[in-house]
Amino acid sequence: MRSAPHHEATPAMTPAASLVFTTLLSHGPLTRAEVGRRTSLSPAAVTKAVRPLMELGYLVEGVDEEARPAVGRPATLVRVDGGRALFIGIKVTGDEIIAVLADLCCRIRIARHVRLTGRAPETVLPVLTALVQELLTEADGFGVRVRGLGIAISGDVDRAGGVVRYSPFLEWRDILLAEIAGTATGLPVTVDNDVRALTVAEHWFGAGVGLSDFALVTVGAGIGCGLVVHGRVVSGAHGVAGEIGHLSLDPHGPLCHCGNRGCVEAIASDPAILRAVRAATDQPVTDAADALALAHGGDPAVRGVYARAGEAIGQAIGFLVNILGPERVIISGEGLAAYDLVAEGIRDAFAASAFGTAAQCDLTTRPLPFEEWARGAAATAIQSFMGSGMWEEAR
Amino acid sequence: MRSAPHHEATPAMTPAASLVFTTLLSHGPLTRAEVGRRTSLSPAAVTKAVRPLMELGYLVEGVDEEARPAVGRPATLVRVDGGRALFIGIKVTGDEIIAVLADLCCRIRIARHVRLTGRAPETVLPVLTALVQELLTEADGFGVRVRGLGIAISGDVDRAGGVVRYSPFLEWRDILLAEIAGTATGLPVTVDNDVRALTVAEHWFGAGVGLSDFALVTVGAGIGCGLVVHGRVVSGAHGVAGEIGHLSLDPHGPLCHCGNRGCVEAIASDPAILRAVRAATDQPVTDAADALALAHGGDPAVRGVYARAGEAIGQAIGFLVNILGPERVIISGEGLAAYDLVAEGIRDAFAASAFGTAAQCDLTTRPLPFEEWARGAAATAIQSFMGSGMWEEAR
Repeated sequence: MRSAPHHEATPAMTPAASLVFTTLLSHGPLTRAEVGRRTSLSPAAVTKAVRPLMELGYLVEGVDEEARPAVGRPATLVRVDGGRALFIGIKVTGDEIIAVLADLCCRIRIARHVRLTGRAPETVLPVLTALVQELLTEADGFGVRVRGLGIAISGDVDRAGGVVRYSPFLEWRDILLAEIAGTATGLPVTVDNDVRALTVAEHWFGAGVGLSDFALVTVGAGIGCGLVVHGRVVSGAHGVAGEIGHLSLDPHGPLCHCGNRGCVEAIASDPAILRAVRAATDQPVTDAADALALAHGGDPAVRGVYARAGEAIGQAIGFLVNILGPERVIISGEGLAAYDLVAEGIRDAFAASAFGTAAQCDLTTRPLPFEEWARGAAATAIQSFMGSGMWEEAR
Repeated sequence: MRSAPHHEATPAMTPAASLVFTTLLSHGPLTRAEVGRRTSLSPAAVTKAVRPLMELGYLVEGVDEEARPAVGRPATLVRVDGGRALFIGIKVTGDEIIAVLADLCCRIRIARHVRLTGRAPETVLPVLTALVQELLTEADGFGVRVRGLGIAISGDVDRAGGVVRYSPFLEWRDILLAEIAGTATGLPVTVDNDVRALTVAEHWFGAGVGLSDFALVTVGAGIGCGLVVHGRVVSGAHGVAGEIGHLSLDPHGPLCHCGNRGCVEAIASDPAILRAVRAATDQPVTDAADALALAHGGDPAVRGVYARAGEAIGQAIGFLVNILGPERVIISGEGLAAYDLVAEGIRDAFAASAFGTAAQCDLTTRPLPFEEWARGAAATAIQSFMGSGMWEEAR
C-alpha cells in the first residue's frame, strides 16, 4: 500500500483487535465468550479489543433473535457490520479484468468483467481505471465510501512497495502499480500477487478457515501456490514463495520458460498440456477445449499427457507437504476443468512422494472462479485498511 | 512436555513477556527503549512485560558501567540473569549421548559425552538417566535448581505428547520418552526432534538471530532440516516438516530406506556416500574417513560421488527456497567435514534451481558440534519452562 503519513492519533489496529476482527469475519456472529475461546484472549482483552471497533461502527452487537431461549436472557452476538465500508478488488488475467465491489464482510455486491484487447500497461491501466470509476459511481448508491482498492497480479509482486516487479503473463516489469492506480483513482491501493490474494480470501472465508497451516495450489495458465504458516500468508524474504511451478522434477523433461527443464509448469500448465497434446496427435488442436475433447474421447496419447501432468502436480504437492507439513492442500484454478483426467495421477504421485505421516495431509479441490480471485484482492484492501491508521480516521 | 495441571494462578507468560524475554536472550543486555524498538512494543507494554520477570529475578537491570558517559546519566540496561535457573539438554546419536548443563541464558556450564553400547531403549534410557543424575549432582554446586530437561532425538517426534513416534537411526517406535524420563529424573521433560531443537538454538543464539524466516539444513548420518517461518519453528500439522531428505530427486537414483528412489538422503547422507564410494572403487573403504582420504587423494570416481551429493543437496535447497523464500539457509552437520568436496555442487545446483530473486537467499555454513545440539535441547526446555506456569511458581 502507498504509505500514508504516520500520526500518533491513528495507530494500526492492535494485534488483539486485528485477531478479534478477522475471527468475526470468518466465524461471526459470535458471543464475546466464543470470541475469547477462539482467540485465546481473556474476557478483559476481548472487551478492550471490541470497544473501539464498536465505537467506530465496524462491529455491532445484538440479541440472537433466532435462538431466543424459552426462559432466561437471550445470547448477545457480535458481528462485523458489512455495510460500514466498501472496497474494490481487481484481478487482471491475460484476457480480461474482473472487478468486484465488496463490503467490509468481503461479500461481493457487484461484479464486472471487461475483455482486454492487449496486455501492455498502456492498454490495461486505462481500462482498469475506468472500471474502478464505474464501481465508485455504483458505490454511491450504497451511501458508504469505498475505502480501498486491491489489485491482484500474477508474478513477482512487491506488496510493501506496491510494485509489479515481473509478471511473465502480462510481460510487465517494474510497474509502480500502487502509485499509478492511486493517482488515477484517488484510493489507497494494495497490490499483491494474485495467488497470495486468493489465499487470504480462502483463509478468511474458504477451505482455509480455522487452519493455521495450509497451501492453495492453483493449476491453469500457470502453476501457483499460496501458503499460510502459523496463521499468516508467506511472502518470501526476497519476494519469491510458493514457487512449486518451478520445481524442476525431470532433468530430461520439456524446456521451461525459466530456462530449466521439467518444471511442473512446463509439464502441467494449460499451455504445456496443449503443446504436449499437439506433439502427441496429428489432429488439429487449437485450444484447451480441443485437448479435453480428445482426452474424453479416449485418445490414449492425450490421456497420457494429462496423466503425466497429474503426476507432476502430485509430486510437487508431495515435496511441498514434506517440507512444510500443512494441514490441508487446496487444489484450484481453471485447470480443474480437466480434474477427472489428472486426479488419479495427483493422488498416486502425492502418496508416493509424501514421507511418513505427511501423507495424512488433506487434499481438497475447490472451484474458484476469477470473481473469487478479485474478492481476494478486495480482502487484501481490507487487510491494509484495518492494518493502517485509516480505520481510525474513517469516522 | 508432560502437561502440568492448569491453575489460574500460574498462567503461561504473556506473548509480550515471552517476546521481551527471547529478545533479551538473543540481543541483551539492552535499554528498555531498545527492547521496545526491537519488539515494536510501546514503552508501557515493555514496562508491563518486564515487571513480573524482574520481580521473579529472571531479568535484572543495572547501569552500563562500560559506557558511562562523561556527563549525564549512564544508560540502564536490562538482561536475563543466567544464574537464575539451570536446565539440562541431551542429544542422543547412534553412538553416544551428549549432555549439557546450561543456565537460563543457555550458556553451557558443563558438558558430558558417554559412549553407547547399543541403541535399544533398554540400553539408552538407563545411561541417559544416570547422566542426568550426574548433572543434577553437579548442579547442586551452583546453588540453583534444575528446572527442566530437554531431549533431542532424530526422527518423527511428537513434542506436545512427549512421544518418539519413529526414530529410524535408533530404531525406536512409540516410546513415551517424556513420561519415562520424567518419572526417572523427577524433572519436567521436553522431547523434540533434534534438528528442530538445534534450530531453536540457532534462532536464539546462532546464525538465525534476528531473522524471522530461515532454514537450517544438517548433512551427516541423515539429511535434516529445521524451519523458522514468521519467527517460529515449523513443526508440521502431522509431525512431518523440513523433510528435504526425502525429496525424491531422481527416479533412477539409489533406493532409499523410505522405499522411494533418488531421495536426497539416499544420495548425500554419510552412509549413502560410503555405499557409492565402495561401489565406485576397488579399494577397501571402511568408513567416512577412508572415503574422504580417497577423494582428497584425487580419485575421480570418488570425487564424482561427492560432487553428486553436493548437487542433490543444492537442488533440495533450491526447492526449499522456491517454496518458502527464507532469508538464509544455514548448512551444518557432521557432513561439513567433506564440505570442500561438495561446496561447488551445492552452489551450482542451488543457483540452477532457485527461481528468480529466490537465488538471492544467503547460503551459510556453520560447524555445529553435538554439544550445540544438546544446547538446542536445553533451549527447548527453557521454552517449555517460560511457556508454562512453572516460571511463576519457581520463586
